[in-house]
Amino acid sequence: MGIKITGTGSYIPKGIEKNEDFHQHEFLNTDGSKINHPNEVIVEKFKAITGIVERRYADDQLVASDIGFLAAQKAIDDANIDPETIDYIICAHNFGDVKANTIQSDILPCLASRIKHRLRIKNPKCVAYDILFGCPGWVEGVIQAQAYIKAGMAKRCLVVGAETLSRVVDKHDRDSMIYSDGAGASIVEATDTEEGILAHESASFTYDEAYYLFFGNSNNKNLCPDTRYIKMHGRKIYEFALTNVAQAMKDCLEKSGVDVSEVKKVLIHQANEKMDEAIIKRFYRLFKAKAPEGIMPMSIHKLGNSSVATVPTLFDLIRNNKLEDHQINKGDVIIFASVGAGMHINAIVYRY
Amino acid sequence: MGIKITGTGSYIPKGIEKNEDFHQHEFLNTDGSKINHPNEVIVEKFKAITGIVERRYADDQLVASDIGFLAAQKAIDDANIDPETIDYIICAHNFGDVKANTIQSDILPCLASRIKHRLRIKNPKCVAYDILFGCPGWVEGVIQAQAYIKAGMAKRCLVVGAETLSRVVDKHDRDSMIYSDGAGASIVEATDTEEGILAHESASFTYDEAYYLFFGNSNNKNLCPDTRYIKMHGRKIYEFALTNVAQAMKDCLEKSGVDVSEVKKVLIHQANEKMDEAIIKRFYRLFKAKAPEGIMPMSIHKLGNSSVATVPTLFDLIRNNKLEDHQINKGDVIIFASVGAGMHINAIVYRY
Repeated sequence: MGIKITGTGSYIPKGIEKNEDFHQHEFLNTDGSKINHPNEVIVEKFKAITGIVERRYADDQLVASDIGFLAAQKAIDDANIDPETIDYIICAHNFGDVKANTIQSDILPCLASRIKHRLRIKNPKCVAYDILFGCPGWVEGVIQAQAYIKAGMAKRCLVVGAETLSRVVDKHDRDSMIYSDGAGASIVEATDTEEGILAHESASFTYDEAYYLFFGNSNNKNLCPDTRYIKMHGRKIYEFALTNVAQAMKDCLEKSGVDVSEVKKVLIHQANEKMDEAIIKRFYRLFKAKAPEGIMPMSIHKLGNSSVATVPTLFDLIRNNKLEDHQINKGDVIIFASVGAGMHINAIVYRY
Repeated sequence: MGIKITGTGSYIPKGIEKNEDFHQHEFLNTDGSKINHPNEVIVEKFKAITGIVERRYADDQLVASDIGFLAAQKAIDDANIDPETIDYIICAHNFGDVKANTIQSDILPCLASRIKHRLRIKNPKCVAYDILFGCPGWVEGVIQAQAYIKAGMAKRCLVVGAETLSRVVDKHDRDSMIYSDGAGASIVEATDTEEGILAHESASFTYDEAYYLFFGNSNNKNLCPDTRYIKMHGRKIYEFALTNVAQAMKDCLEKSGVDVSEVKKVLIHQANEKMDEAIIKRFYRLFKAKAPEGIMPMSIHKLGNSSVATVPTLFDLIRNNKLEDHQINKGDVIIFASVGAGMHINAIVYRY
């Protein structure tokens, strides 16, 4: 038996927020003081590090579960399955449904219930729940789907990652430029072939790292102290990820028994281009090898960091030949890897 | 191999909110109109239906992850295990950490990460994530732990349910009297004996039922329309639960192969005493039997409905001989059952 992704879908919001759109923002340091550079310089420096030129914001009338539903619908169509045969719907996110221009997360009911409702699935034995696992939530959802299939509790699962980070950003924080909205989904199921998931690795680093990403106040001290936003200690995350993501990917690859030379693509969470490049370099260095050209497809330039949505969206784009110069062919070994709030890390070695 | 709960713990907040404490509230109908009864009558009627005399509210300086940590610490001590040997920490809740007198849910990082951080667990291979599955979240967490153990992905899991519903109630809604705060936790692990989980059942009813519990505006139309609270369609939930919880329990018991006469206790989600009694009556009627005296231990009178915390807290109280006239002895078959937002239902048949 193999456990395989048999369908993918993604929803890329139509609203494009360009770097230039931040030129009028009032960026402040964390202590509330002015930053001694013009915004044009701040934005250029940001672009040089993260690679982000533009990002996507969902339309005001949409919330995370809406775009999750749209991605899910496409994944179901792509897999060409009867939605009533789905045993689990697992939805990963970080902030639930946040309506435009409001500050509350709506997670009652859970987003998976909303998505199932929108999909008009009747079968009550299709269990719908959400996981909170930071940006690696979608990859972890696939790992959980694998667990149910291996345990004989499911045959077919829908795993969705949906996030509207634009709704929780502090406009006075330079890091707000990183965040984007999006959704990705996949059908994970048991098949007769030996392809699919070869190994996985999950880890939660919480001893010192639990609050590297956190919910905190605006850099603008005049704003309401009770209103909080997504915040990060970027430098700490960078150093943490560099060491630990590369190591987790290595551990995972060794578990799979696949040689590093066989890896055709690494689909890594689109957090920050320089960080992702450094992780890949470190990963290959652990095998005393050099990162091959074109090993790491990137969508961050145009799509930004949409948290749980980056990896499934990237995979969906490649499968649909929508990412220039990147293909995945039958039999190719690929690695999914992610890192984010928690701090959580995971990786899957997968034969396509 | 058996999969067993080897340790339990709970945290019951010290703050007691009595029914009389609601006598001064301004209760309104959902359309904002005055209710034509004095509060004393409303409260008495409420007590007659739900059985609730008082409920617990967490101290202002505590949030859900704090009380989840306190319960988890007790479960670890009770199981007498090294916390570094835990493979998964699964935390169920519905609203995350909501600070007193604020309206935002803080779920970044996830509560399981916070609890692991507080437990000072270093092992990064201990995977910490949250599930959102309404009130049945803790029972579902046990089912998920079972999946990891069966799939060979874990040997020992910590499952926590923690909730501070007092932070999300609409003071103008009579239903606000139902809600309470609390946390329960358990260690679930593989053992050499054949005891433990015999069967489980999970279901998500979303076609018509997804929004029976929801996040909605205050009954007081003068309050901010952007601020939302926990809301329910009580009558619909009652009718839904009566039919579907009883049926799920029956299906689960039949899967387990245990005769209904062998069931010694049913630990059901403490939602509403009349509803719980009706479910039990219906469950036995499905077997053409009568509910035995003392089959259903209740904590709702003094503890209210603390969502994900009710079932693990009830179990912990009985194991520690803190619930008058209720014991569970080695070999006894018990049923855990729950129902809540989603609408989700689950049950576990368990040999103690």
